[in-house]
Amino acid sequence: MFKHYLPVDVPKEKEGAFLENFEKTTGGSGRLMLFAGDQKVEHLNNDFYGEGIPAEDNDPEHMFKIASQAKVGVFATQFGLICRYGRDYRDIPYLVKLNAKTNLVPYTDKDPYSQQWLEVADVVALKERHGLDVRGVGYTVYIGGEHEHAMFREAARIIHEAHEHGMLAVIWLYPKGPYVKDEHDPHLIAGAAGVAACLGADFVKLKVPYVNGRFDPTLLREATTAAGRTGVLCEGGARVDETAFLAQLHEQIHIGGSRGNGTGRNIHQRPLEEAVRMANAIYAVTCENASVDEALAVLRG
Amino acid sequence: MFKHYLPVDVPKEKEGAFLENFEKTTGGSGRLMLFAGDQKVEHLNNDFYGEGIPAEDNDPEHMFKIASQAKVGVFATQFGLICRYGRDYRDIPYLVKLNAKTNLVPYTDKDPYSQQWLEVADVVALKERHGLDVRGVGYTVYIGGEHEHAMFREAARIIHEAHEHGMLAVIWLYPKGPYVKDEHDPHLIAGAAGVAACLGADFVKLKVPYVNGRFDPTLLREATTAAGRTGVLCEGGARVDETAFLAQLHEQIHIGGSRGNGTGRNIHQRPLEEAVRMANAIYAVTCENASVDEALAVLRG
Amino acid sequence: MFKHYLPVDVPKEKEGAFLENFEKTTGGSGRLMLFAGDQKVEHLNNDFYGEGIPAEDNDPEHMFKIASQAKVGVFATQFGLICRYGRDYRDIPYLVKLNAKTNLVPYTDKDPYSQQWLEVADVVALKERHGLDVRGVGYTVYIGGEHEHAMFREAARIIHEAHEHGMLAVIWLYPKGPYVKDEHDPHLIAGAAGVAACLGADFVKLKVPYVNGRFDPTLLREATTAAGRTGVLCEGGARVDETAFLAQLHEQIHIGGSRGNGTGRNIHQRPLEEAVRMANAIYAVTCENASVDEALAVLRG
Amino acid sequence: MFKHYLPVDVPKEKEGAFLENFEKTTGGSGRLMLFAGDQKVEHLNNDFYGEGIPAEDNDPEHMFKIASQAKVGVFATQFGLICRYGRDYRDIPYLVKLNAKTNLVPYTDKDPYSQQWLEVADVVALKERHGLDVRGVGYTVYIGGEHEHAMFREAARIIHEAHEHGMLAVIWLYPKGPYVKDEHDPHLIAGAAGVAACLGADFVKLKVPYVNGRFDPTLLREATTAAGRTGVLCEGGARVDETAFLAQLHEQIHIGGSRGNGTGRNIHQRPLEEAVRMANAIYAVTCENASVDEALAVLRG
Amino acid sequence: MFKHYLPVDVPKEKEGAFLENFEKTTGGSGRLMLFAGDQKVEHLNNDFYGEGIPAEDNDPEHMFKIASQAKVGVFATQFGLICRYGRDYRDIPYLVKLNAKTNLVPYTDKDPYSQQWLEVADVVALKERHGLDVRGVGYTVYIGGEHEHAMFREAARIIHEAHEHGMLAVIWLYPKGPYVKDEHDPHLIAGAAGVAACLGADFVKLKVPYVNGRFDPTLLREATTAAGRTGVLCEGGARVDETAFLAQLHEQIHIGGSRGNGTGRNIHQRPLEEAVRMANAIYAVTCENASVDEALAVLRG
Repeated sequence: MFKHYLPVDVPKEKEGAFLENFEKTTGGSGRLMLFAGDQKVEHLNNDFYGEGIPAEDNDPEHMFKIASQAKVGVFATQFGLICRYGRDYRDIPYLVKLNAKTNLVPYTDKDPYSQQWLEVADVVALKERHGLDVRGVGYTVYIGGEHEHAMFREAARIIHEAHEHGMLAVIWLYPKGPYVKDEHDPHLIAGAAGVAACLGADFVKLKVPYVNGRFDPTLLREATTAAGRTGVLCEGGARVDETAFLAQLHEQIHIGGSRGNGTGRNIHQRPLEEAVRMANAIYAVTCENASVDEALAVLRG
Repeated sequence: MFKHYLPVDVPKEKEGAFLENFEKTTGGSGRLMLFAGDQKVEHLNNDFYGEGIPAEDNDPEHMFKIASQAKVGVFATQFGLICRYGRDYRDIPYLVKLNAKTNLVPYTDKDPYSQQWLEVADVVALKERHGLDVRGVGYTVYIGGEHEHAMFREAARIIHEAHEHGMLAVIWLYPKGPYVKDEHDPHLIAGAAGVAACLGADFVKLKVPYVNGRFDPTLLREATTAAGRTGVLCEGGARVDETAFLAQLHEQIHIGGSRGNGTGRNIHQRPLEEAVRMANAIYAVTCENASVDEALAVLRG
Repeated sequence: MFKHYLPVDVPKEKEGAFLENFEKTTGGSGRLMLFAGDQKVEHLNNDFYGEGIPAEDNDPEHMFKIASQAKVGVFATQFGLICRYGRDYRDIPYLVKLNAKTNLVPYTDKDPYSQQWLEVADVVALKERHGLDVRGVGYTVYIGGEHEHAMFREAARIIHEAHEHGMLAVIWLYPKGPYVKDEHDPHLIAGAAGVAACLGADFVKLKVPYVNGRFDPTLLREATTAAGRTGVLCEGGARVDETAFLAQLHEQIHIGGSRGNGTGRNIHQRPLEEAVRMANAIYAVTCENASVDEALAVLRG
Repeated sequence: MFKHYLPVDVPKEKEGAFLENFEKTTGGSGRLMLFAGDQKVEHLNNDFYGEGIPAEDNDPEHMFKIASQAKVGVFATQFGLICRYGRDYRDIPYLVKLNAKTNLVPYTDKDPYSQQWLEVADVVALKERHGLDVRGVGYTVYIGGEHEHAMFREAARIIHEAHEHGMLAVIWLYPKGPYVKDEHDPHLIAGAAGVAACLGADFVKLKVPYVNGRFDPTLLREATTAAGRTGVLCEGGARVDETAFLAQLHEQIHIGGSRGNGTGRNIHQRPLEEAVRMANAIYAVTCENASVDEALAVLRG
Repeated sequence: MFKHYLPVDVPKEKEGAFLENFEKTTGGSGRLMLFAGDQKVEHLNNDFYGEGIPAEDNDPEHMFKIASQAKVGVFATQFGLICRYGRDYRDIPYLVKLNAKTNLVPYTDKDPYSQQWLEVADVVALKERHGLDVRGVGYTVYIGGEHEHAMFREAARIIHEAHEHGMLAVIWLYPKGPYVKDEHDPHLIAGAAGVAACLGADFVKLKVPYVNGRFDPTLLREATTAAGRTGVLCEGGARVDETAFLAQLHEQIHIGGSRGNGTGRNIHQRPLEEAVRMANAIYAVTCENASVDEALAVLRG
């Protein structure tokens, strides 16, 4: 099962581990529900404190509680944060996001460089030496700026090293900078998808394509085809209405051909129990072939 | 005790050492009194010579005398300075500050980069081979500039390597540069706190939050919550009135939720005996649950 | 056979492997038909989706299908993409392109830097450990900009390391940037050819020389002579009429002295079966001494 | 003797070697007479050829002759120059200056970066493998510019590595660049002294402090105190009248608290025999507690 | 013989090899005739194709033919080019030029950086593993620009590593950039000579000094003295009249004190047989103490 998603740089002795990891992480669906918890660096405290956000979201442990109680493919966050809570949350399926940057400097002023913090070997040790359930690694590449080359090199190495250890590699791939007129352009997003395929990523998280400011699931097809065997994850984005969110997710998968999603705010900006239900609903659509109505039933408990 | 502050990247065989180190360094309180002695690079000779500063403060040994006679959690200064006095002051609890920069170039003109000087392995040798009582390492990260990525990488590595050796890691985390309008903004400081948590720091030294130029301990709560299991240390800053200083420190801890402080000038810009008493007073509030009045009694001998 | 193409840095124990590799890859002709499949990064999705391009070309597997069914010297593409399909296409003769950049930033605005992604040792492992039929490595050097020095160093190392493992090294060598007035200038292209010879490349892919916007095969002779024992490959470029394409290819080789070509769009922008025939026609001219008419017969099946 | 100058990072098995080295190099005085011969890079040929300079000074061997015939603490120059003459001048006490830059680009136009040329391990080999009498290493740090961080890191490593091998480390520490209004400001020089102490240097060569363009030995006290256990060496500067030079040197030591000097031009810009006598006079004041009159007697032979 | 040219960093077990290498390469004269063949990168194809240049010069093998048939001290060119022809030209005495850059970007616009391509260890392997007659390594340093520091570090390492393997190190040393008003200034050239001595080079190739646009051999003496034991090689430059060329060469050596020359265009821009005779004539003046008339007789066969 999923043999066509087994990259050739996974060594023979790790093939079983990779496939088991892939099947378990995608719930047997080949699709990934990624609970994104890396915004404490990317957006500083904006996503965790303020109007409309429950007070408990300000404590980083809130995300660990959700991830440990809900169905998630992986909980993606930084190595250091995992280290602070991991002893009490050993069974969360983790994806270690290996780079991050703050949003203090606008993309329009300086080309972004989000450098790798730690090595894949450190992540492997987290799993093998320290006993956490680590499924893979993540890394963001910004194309279109003067540091593109450095992120390409880091990404290619990270993906290859992850495969050598039988782990999954997920790439966040965003065109940025003054030469990017419209980051929701379907053709540009398809280009980003193809780049991720050339890097060898197992999954790539992309912006959602719009024409005239509106999403239409057919717009996604150019990208999901261009990505080849690399699965496209749609970005969850800012918090929106639940029904609309789940309906769009369903269309992304069943019409657009996406193979999952990466969602943060739409999950963690809720009280614990509600957040767990929302995560379960997203998981149901992504990995359990639930309809929108079935997912809404999950959400409502 | 303090098991929830034991990061998962401390290897099994170092867990006992880390916890013992943590308990001893925090005096069993979980809070850290950090005597900051790294300003000879950061501020050149401004903090050590001039009007209102006793002549003896100009000699770097003044700080070693204070640190050896007073109660301090750690005395934080550069590796090289420790090497010059360490043979005569073996029993000071040291924290080796691994980077530093001068203040000659204003932050408004060029984005700061304070690079790592030596390796964590060198610090470990100071402890294990040369017999000093080294408790941990320190590193400053400036977010918001073009070198943020390099400092993130160095910080993440340093913290992880410190943990691998059972040592504490303290991060100074300051937003800087033209995009930082107000470095005392409580929300920005909470963002910095969250970044330190994602880096995996044991403690983070932050600016003190103000609204309309005034400190109010409740302003600190957003940051101390966002920091999660990373303890927030409030910056001591320029020398102020003792009573006000100790009262504010008490509020930071008991109302604001901080877990310690980093104080330099308010200690070393005094004659030796008085400096020792001031350090003891700060320690009493920080680690011995002293009231402000009790601390003032300590200060007055 | 081809002993004069055996570089002296191929170690004794790899001489047989290099010569066999060279003979097999050039079909005994000493000339190379390179099927270029690296544009998914270089041109994003522009070459794979849009008017006049068959829908199947948008799926990266299209190129693997062509490469596995047609006669090609090598199929050149990125390591990561090979990894995603290699398990199902073990017998394609691969050339791993070790660097790539997107076209988002114009050359006129910033000097290009296309950095090496992975090591030659990783490519060797792809062949020896993972069992793919890897023939060599590729790398692009842009001369004339501020990053020229970095690409020279990477190229020189890659070529030398490839030879140490008995593999071929192909360099794409393009003058770029504000100081390059005309990248089709025959004298400049001859300069580029000489640079590739000094780097020690086995083959170099160059722009086609024009005078007054027109190609004349005699213009190529300065470059093919200046390249010495490094074989010149002419760039295939945008899709053009088949007869013109094959006739020009024939002239490049038999009048201009080129030793092959690198063609992407003129092959993959066709339905599978036609693409296979076009590749075979190009191979016939390049490696089988076919006349233009014979090649057209191949193309027409 | 001199135990208080023994840095703690000198390993136990090298303590004897370090102390013997220190005592021998300072002639038992704790003070260092450094004969500076690194200007062939720093000032190109300006200091060695021209009006008022004897013809023999243009030959680099002139300095080796002086250093071998005079009393000097160390002769400081570049590794490569030592290599060219070392076989014939094995007994000179060398200090290998590990970085250097030319004066072609003014400090006002570009921030200086003087990078490390070779490793401390190479210097150790010069001593242990090649049999020269190498006492230590030297390195220049320019503070106040955008490369400060790189020089701090190199300096800290060099000092630590020198100590690990029982060798002395001397730092040249100069504030430079557009933010430095007056490099002879006593307070700024004291800041530089403190920086060297934090780097862990055994000696630091500084500019001489002036107020209103005039030297007064009491101005030096802020710096010599701030330097702690790091000895301050005063820069010799351009050639001046001998009596004035020796008198100022005496005051620097006995009033200002300096622990030596670094002199080049005032020695080598003389015929050999006179240069030897001048070096001996400087040595007498620095290391033999000679009065100015005694030193003048030495100078006059 | 030539013991005074034996650098102290040549290890004992390599002293014999170094001295034999030195004697053989200088034909027992201590002077070096360097046949410069590195211009295919430095000047692209300008020196090899065009009016007044014989057609055969466009083929890189032309230089190998000359070098194998004429008397040359060393033939200096890039590693990769040597690799392409070395199997057929094993007995040429090679000097591997380790860096190179093109001339596309003018020095007035951007400070040059010519980075090291390969390691000295790779050159050693060429000699010891692959059996070529390699005598040494070469490297160009441009002083006066923002990359000076990087080239100083690479040069110092290369020279030291060459000596460790008993090989010669030749440095091309040119002041460049906006701060260099006149690169033929005798005092500046003497400065460059001194820099090469401080780097430890065995030979340094310099510009020829002019005053008022005219060469006078006495102008060279400042530089040849300042170079100490490093031999000065005068640049051959653009092709000029043979008699003038040989006369000037004779004066450079016998009046100016140079220890050789580096000549490319004046040799290879001739038909093979004539080029061989010209090389022999240059060798006769440089290494065989020939008079100008004797050299002209050699040239005329």
